[in-house]
Amino acid sequence: MTVNTPHWIWYPGDFELYHALKQNFSRVERGCPWPAFWKSDGFRNRVVFRHNYDLPEETTFFVTGVTGSVGYVQLDEEKHPFGTLIFCTPGRHRISIHIGCIGCVPSVFISGDMIYSDESWMAEDYASPPVPAACNRYYMDVERDPSEWVYAEKIFDPVSIKELESGVLYSFETELTAALEVKGPDCPLVYLGESRAEALDTEHCYYFCRPDEATHLTPRQAMRYAFLPGVQAKDYSVRAIHQYTDIPQRASFTCDDEELNRIFAVSAHTFALCSGCFFLDGIKRDKWIWGGDAYQSMFVNRYLTADADIEKRTLLALRGNDPVTTHVNTILDYSLLWIISLDVYRESYGDTEFLSSIYPKARSLMELCLSQRDENGFLVGRKQDWVFVDWADFDRDGPLCAEQMLLAECCRVMAELAPEEEKQNYRSLREELQDKIDRFFWDEEEQAYVDSFTSGKRHVTRHANIFAILFGLADDARKKLLAESVLFNQAIPAIKTPYFRFYELEAMCRLGYLKEVLQEIKSYWGGMLRLGAVTFWEEYDPSRLLEQQYEMYGDPFGKSLCHAWAASPIYLLARYFVGIRPLTPGGITYEAKPQTQFFRELDCTFPIGQQQVHIQIHDGAVSVESYPCTI
Amino acid sequence: MTVNTPHWIWYPGDFELYHALKQNFSRVERGCPWPAFWKSDGFRNRVVFRHNYDLPEETTFFVTGVTGSVGYVQLDEEKHPFGTLIFCTPGRHRISIHIGCIGCVPSVFISGDMIYSDESWMAEDYASPPVPAACNRYYMDVERDPSEWVYAEKIFDPVSIKELESGVLYSFETELTAALEVKGPDCPLVYLGESRAEALDTEHCYYFCRPDEATHLTPRQAMRYAFLPGVQAKDYSVRAIHQYTDIPQRASFTCDDEELNRIFAVSAHTFALCSGCFFLDGIKRDKWIWGGDAYQSMFVNRYLTADADIEKRTLLALRGNDPVTTHVNTILDYSLLWIISLDVYRESYGDTEFLSSIYPKARSLMELCLSQRDENGFLVGRKQDWVFVDWADFDRDGPLCAEQMLLAECCRVMAELAPEEEKQNYRSLREELQDKIDRFFWDEEEQAYVDSFTSGKRHVTRHANIFAILFGLADDARKKLLAESVLFNQAIPAIKTPYFRFYELEAMCRLGYLKEVLQEIKSYWGGMLRLGAVTFWEEYDPSRLLEQQYEMYGDPFGKSLCHAWAASPIYLLARYFVGIRPLTPGGITYEAKPQTQFFRELDCTFPIGQQQVHIQIHDGAVSVESYPCTI
Repeated sequence: MTVNTPHWIWYPGDFELYHALKQNFSRVERGCPWPAFWKSDGFRNRVVFRHNYDLPEETTFFVTGVTGSVGYVQLDEEKHPFGTLIFCTPGRHRISIHIGCIGCVPSVFISGDMIYSDESWMAEDYASPPVPAACNRYYMDVERDPSEWVYAEKIFDPVSIKELESGVLYSFETELTAALEVKGPDCPLVYLGESRAEALDTEHCYYFCRPDEATHLTPRQAMRYAFLPGVQAKDYSVRAIHQYTDIPQRASFTCDDEELNRIFAVSAHTFALCSGCFFLDGIKRDKWIWGGDAYQSMFVNRYLTADADIEKRTLLALRGNDPVTTHVNTILDYSLLWIISLDVYRESYGDTEFLSSIYPKARSLMELCLSQRDENGFLVGRKQDWVFVDWADFDRDGPLCAEQMLLAECCRVMAELAPEEEKQNYRSLREELQDKIDRFFWDEEEQAYVDSFTSGKRHVTRHANIFAILFGLADDARKKLLAESVLFNQAIPAIKTPYFRFYELEAMCRLGYLKEVLQEIKSYWGGMLRLGAVTFWEEYDPSRLLEQQYEMYGDPFGKSLCHAWAASPIYLLARYFVGIRPLTPGGITYEAKPQTQFFRELDCTFPIGQQQVHIQIHDGAVSVESYPCTI
Repeated sequence: MTVNTPHWIWYPGDFELYHALKQNFSRVERGCPWPAFWKSDGFRNRVVFRHNYDLPEETTFFVTGVTGSVGYVQLDEEKHPFGTLIFCTPGRHRISIHIGCIGCVPSVFISGDMIYSDESWMAEDYASPPVPAACNRYYMDVERDPSEWVYAEKIFDPVSIKELESGVLYSFETELTAALEVKGPDCPLVYLGESRAEALDTEHCYYFCRPDEATHLTPRQAMRYAFLPGVQAKDYSVRAIHQYTDIPQRASFTCDDEELNRIFAVSAHTFALCSGCFFLDGIKRDKWIWGGDAYQSMFVNRYLTADADIEKRTLLALRGNDPVTTHVNTILDYSLLWIISLDVYRESYGDTEFLSSIYPKARSLMELCLSQRDENGFLVGRKQDWVFVDWADFDRDGPLCAEQMLLAECCRVMAELAPEEEKQNYRSLREELQDKIDRFFWDEEEQAYVDSFTSGKRHVTRHANIFAILFGLADDARKKLLAESVLFNQAIPAIKTPYFRFYELEAMCRLGYLKEVLQEIKSYWGGMLRLGAVTFWEEYDPSRLLEQQYEMYGDPFGKSLCHAWAASPIYLLARYFVGIRPLTPGGITYEAKPQTQFFRELDCTFPIGQQQVHIQIHDGAVSVESYPCTI
């Protein structure tokens, strides 16, 4: 702990809600801004921060309010404006700082020898009991405006400049999230593409703009290629100011399989690009914070950066304020995954302080979900809810089995998180639910859970069955059955999205089908590499040629070529092949059990909580060592 | 109805919530901004507007988003950015406009021959069913920014410029809400006072500032006197740019009593100054929107401007969003008064459209109140609630009688407003409550309602007894008793605030004590006039000298000298002396029954709904005529 380091402070969650608004409003598609289409909870506009002191000697302090805020400092009975040096005599004092702000998060920075802003201040919002104020490590300087997320920068010059008949194409060594600087006559239109084909297709390119006249910069945007139509290379100087959130990667992976090494490295690059203030789905599209994507990112992040802060920011951004009336991203299952996420967080970091602070929001969201149960006790969507699970042809008659599986898992998680007196209720709920899922959804003939018990169609998809494996709703014997009756049953339609493919691969790992998973990693992710991918894609169809890969959602360049959920090999390799996992929350104890049959040589490091675990396989010998992380 | 007049449109209530934030954050006290200390509900940041058209011929339209917003226009399947001319073929089309905005109300202006923005568009907020979009008459020009409330302006030159030893004092003919323009060397400090004494007291003056260097203007501020210390008159040119909301006054009042005429005129001026975007308590202080003050303003406004719009804006600003968890201004009784306000509005304007649109918010607030009943069914405050009623020494042990009276009245109002199937419930609740109030709070010996039945102290204040008269909770016989046992009983402590004095005077009027009320009007309000008042004060103590009048709340210039609730003579004179009142909602039928014994001569006009009612008493003859309002 650093002594006397003031931070900007705000009401917990407000920083995240404000920046989530900015993030979710930042998508632009062919000149049309596209703000995310769900209820976007706002931050509080009026808060108060309080602190009592017993000062050994006289001191002074100085309060700065965020730009656009109004308020005052109350020292005992005296009021002072912001921006004045305030004297304080020795002895006991009550200080409160009242602030209102409409356009951004009401936040203050208090500097002084003895009186300064940090999490020891209490925050109030005139609606709920006082809570500790929040801050983060990025805002420890009064000059750093908490209404702007500040990126680190790195300049990239183009690796190729190609003069074409129609203009000039600039290529960069990899995909970036950059502001393109274009110096030259006028401000030409710039087409930014994740692929060369996209940048050159001025009709269908997803993003184009004119750089700012004064700064010569475009807004920060996903890009690997930039095309300037109708100009000549000699007239322009172009470079990319890559703007990224600098979260140190604590993992490395090298083995005797070059393809796997490359898959790991490209996954890490992909994931880093998608990790900004929050976990994003993709950097070109949607640039939104989605609960399902974020849930998967937490598994990857545990093994790549083990940065708890981005997970906290993302969890707070997704959940919004109480009272809660709508589901995360409007999606019923994303609300459930949000609750389950808290257990992933718990496993990774322990951090009971954050978990207790967010528990009331878990409980109220759980109550909303539980209030939506039908007469059988099964969760159903309301008219305004999106019951998603996956892009797949479910039999959506009546309650959907997969949702019940998620709800049952939520009950388990809530029992973990709840205070002692509430645990039993959730445990009982889970037992009842497991029992009822068995009675209503298990089909003895199909040897599988069916989507719907109300339609009588006994339609089987993989999804609920995968959840039954992952969440332990099937016992070991049944899990084994499910491998045959569902996972390896060609008659059951294949999973179409890499999103759900993640769950499927994990289920296969759980059942010991590591060889099959490795093969899939090498074929699917290796397939993208063989097509020249420098980041992993939202989706990949091995049967298509490169030029057919860019289309998605009926849009010729609709596919995101840098998508967080495509970074899952990091998790799968670390968790199941290197075999490292926390045994107690925060990885205080952990297991490292490399599956030696897959590696002749291996030299890798992964974070487990505060430790770095270094594992080597060399000449048939396995070594595991751990040391404290110094990053 | 004007044809084809586009308005700026927004989600209903959002304009009011945004401007309420600005209003409630605008108070400044001796250099310290003082944002109001209650939960300030924010506006929605992400909404969508939808409209379907069946066009007889091709047309174009153009969408402008408010500054700082992002979004797009969707015409059938096609997306268009804001700020482009959009072509539309004949036939059926679905148009939606998606908009996100963090810093102010997401609002759009759509112009076109056939497609343009008005209340026929539907608005959605991703949390509740679609509702008609909202607009108002002040925002019918694309250039008029809905994030700024625009005031009409009138320039006032000082009526006196006095060179004093310590500086120059500028006096204006009356109190204003003005930006002071100060042209001359440098930017001197300016002290603005409601009284001469305040402006000259540079230590205690409530408001001081330095005019803006570029514009030479101070912010808009309450002022009658401006003092520039340490300067000479010859170096400066000073004038006041009075900025006001131009709501035409539809009332006039002249009788043979010059003092009454003056009281009416000064009340009208006072009230106009306090009527901006919303009903404010006062123009120097607090400049906040308070539910209790607003309730009283609605009675005055009915007879002065009959402007329904300011009442709707105020009601929406006070109530905030659902789900509701805190009381209006944190005050339990202000929530109750807010519900009762809706009935005042209904009586004044009918306007079932607005009342239906706001009914869900009345119901949810009523549910919050009803959820706070104790085991006897009496309303009690939660820890976080302020149970106010009035500044008075109540016996606050257990449930407070006055709150139960208000709750009973809310039940009556809810029965009026509720759809048929919900009415009976509220009627029964009211009956039960009236019965229980009688059983628990009526004290036969005191012949009065006591504050508390739990303490055993049988403490009587005027407040509950006044409510019993006003809300018909006492029958006629008991009302008469109460006049003797409470109203004219010197042993019961006098009401200290003009706020509650309003209720008391109305109760006296109801019981026929008009002579006594007239005497009080002339003595209390006439007393202020005799001390030179140009606007009526927050409070007036006849026993004090002028220089002792300015102190309040322990602050030497804490008293507001222009306070809305002091304008109540307008209501009392119109309603009880001129005797005009609506008999059916909106004044479709009305009663005009002048109390001729009080006037030898009378020539007055008052609005009743859309009508102007002109009443004359001359030579013992009374004439009443009405004609449609043409303002």
